[in-house]
Amino acid sequence: MNLKVISKATVVNQYLPKKLTAKTTVTAFAPSNIALCKYWGKRDVELNLPLNSSLSISLGHLGSHTRISHSDSGGDVILLNTKEQALDSSFSRKILDFIALFRRTQPLPLIIDTRNNIPTAAGLASSASGFAALMIALNDFFDLQLDKPTLSAFARMGSGSASRSVFSGFVRWDMGEQSDGMDSVASQLDSHWPGFCIGLIKVSSVQKPVDSRSGMARTIKTSNLYASWPAQASADLLSIEAAIKNKNFSDLGQSAEKNALSMHATMMSAWPPLVYWLPESLAVMHKIWQLRSDGIAVYFTMDAGPNLKLLFESSAKKILEIEFPDMEIIQPFGNE
Amino acid sequence: MNLKVISKATVVNQYLPKKLTAKTTVTAFAPSNIALCKYWGKRDVELNLPLNSSLSISLGHLGSHTRISHSDSGGDVILLNTKEQALDSSFSRKILDFIALFRRTQPLPLIIDTRNNIPTAAGLASSASGFAALMIALNDFFDLQLDKPTLSAFARMGSGSASRSVFSGFVRWDMGEQSDGMDSVASQLDSHWPGFCIGLIKVSSVQKPVDSRSGMARTIKTSNLYASWPAQASADLLSIEAAIKNKNFSDLGQSAEKNALSMHATMMSAWPPLVYWLPESLAVMHKIWQLRSDGIAVYFTMDAGPNLKLLFESSAKKILEIEFPDMEIIQPFGNE
Repeated sequence: MNLKVISKATVVNQYLPKKLTAKTTVTAFAPSNIALCKYWGKRDVELNLPLNSSLSISLGHLGSHTRISHSDSGGDVILLNTKEQALDSSFSRKILDFIALFRRTQPLPLIIDTRNNIPTAAGLASSASGFAALMIALNDFFDLQLDKPTLSAFARMGSGSASRSVFSGFVRWDMGEQSDGMDSVASQLDSHWPGFCIGLIKVSSVQKPVDSRSGMARTIKTSNLYASWPAQASADLLSIEAAIKNKNFSDLGQSAEKNALSMHATMMSAWPPLVYWLPESLAVMHKIWQLRSDGIAVYFTMDAGPNLKLLFESSAKKILEIEFPDMEIIQPFGNE
Repeated sequence: MNLKVISKATVVNQYLPKKLTAKTTVTAFAPSNIALCKYWGKRDVELNLPLNSSLSISLGHLGSHTRISHSDSGGDVILLNTKEQALDSSFSRKILDFIALFRRTQPLPLIIDTRNNIPTAAGLASSASGFAALMIALNDFFDLQLDKPTLSAFARMGSGSASRSVFSGFVRWDMGEQSDGMDSVASQLDSHWPGFCIGLIKVSSVQKPVDSRSGMARTIKTSNLYASWPAQASADLLSIEAAIKNKNFSDLGQSAEKNALSMHATMMSAWPPLVYWLPESLAVMHKIWQLRSDGIAVYFTMDAGPNLKLLFESSAKKILEIEFPDMEIIQPFGNE
């Protein structure tokens, strides 16, 4: 699509004030999110521009709290869950590269303190909420006065799905068309669904052997079936959006589950095969299908990993708590 | 592709002699076959015409022995592995419908005695070898004098993959283009590969919940990813054929495994999801990938069921017998 590579700095610079000012201390929060229509495949690796639009549900108060303050130690300090991280670690480098876009040549050393309250049993990625919270904090700290769509676009440069974590509730990330990606931003759907439940089932906490970024790249390069993915995702997004509007839970569940399985299908047909599922993942899936054939409206979604996220309404909560005693339940909109 | 539906009888009648004669007793054998490039999707349900060409390896002396003789009991008798089958059973009806194409209005009652020597642990379908052996026997019994391609085309009408079981060794089934399907026939590749091994791993003998015919139909109807399958299969077939010609085992294994996983990928993205894998299937897959990363050239293929067929050369036999003690090994061309 876009042939020329535009750097992050080139895009960001156009939106920054000539002279930067800095506050003393700011804090920001951004929620974690679970995609019901997945982001899978980049059309631009530098700017994290996707090959399809996606849609997620934010996890309420579960996410990342980020605090930016001045460092008087003479250098930057990066903290994750109160533990200081080596500056040359992969985690610190990603954060410092991102911060460099906004402080530019300012010598001011900073303390970046990130705390995730995502359930430990969740198997959830924290890069989405982490980069969204960091972007919101940077905007405040340097008084950038960026609007929400711009915050979403810039958070995306840190981690694709961070574009969605700038918002709460149901969030759609439009893929956009521009080569600078400034139309590839998320927005919040005007919808509230009390009783909407997400059940986190962790089958493994072992670090996945292939990260999402590499997985996407391998899939696009080697899976012939991937050619059909963008159209599939586009159809799923429309169905899910309509299901949210009409509060039609079975339509939502069906489209979300089909979307997740189709994404995993594109990975499996890659070479070498990319199968994030473990035997235990498949056992949970078969159990879900059995429960559904018994009349219980429960569906699932999965990201690039072995863990499952169940989707159901609060009316099914009791029976599912019995069936899955280790499941952690999140209600993004509270109970009805 | 073909818009008008042509009946089996219309096609077959053009190849039959005006007057039928019948021998007293004939016997025939056809081998079972395992597809390395799968047959998945029909362009014509009546004639079993496929949407892609496929390629298989025949299992030597393992398959179906069929005996046709006159019945003096006044009616047809159908035997399967020496047990008489009810004439209104699904098994008998398929056989009698097929036989009707060739005996037409002849009143002659027959005994059809089919014996499969496919390993019980195999989890292999017997319809391919069964219909191929039946077709070969019918050709002899009624002295039809049909050539091999015609036998292949007619066996296909009984069961798609039976078109390949008319031959031994590596067999390619060309999808063909004609609406009467008479160019949708198999042929044997001129290739001999001593030491080529197939390892049968049975993880379940429970009847699969959705048969292949229904599975294909559901996938074509509901999986968007299926649109990419025929091109994928076509590319895989070329690679596999080249790998056989060059005796390049890793190329063969890679293309066969990718082909099987891609077929399963199209099923998983159907709705309701069609996942034939059991947790145990996935455990074996992960073990195979681990062995491969340890340097052992072992690949697998899977049909519409939970069992696996391992592909390796006899040099890896010893180590794999230790890793998979319950595996049944078949060497279609004998040992080197």
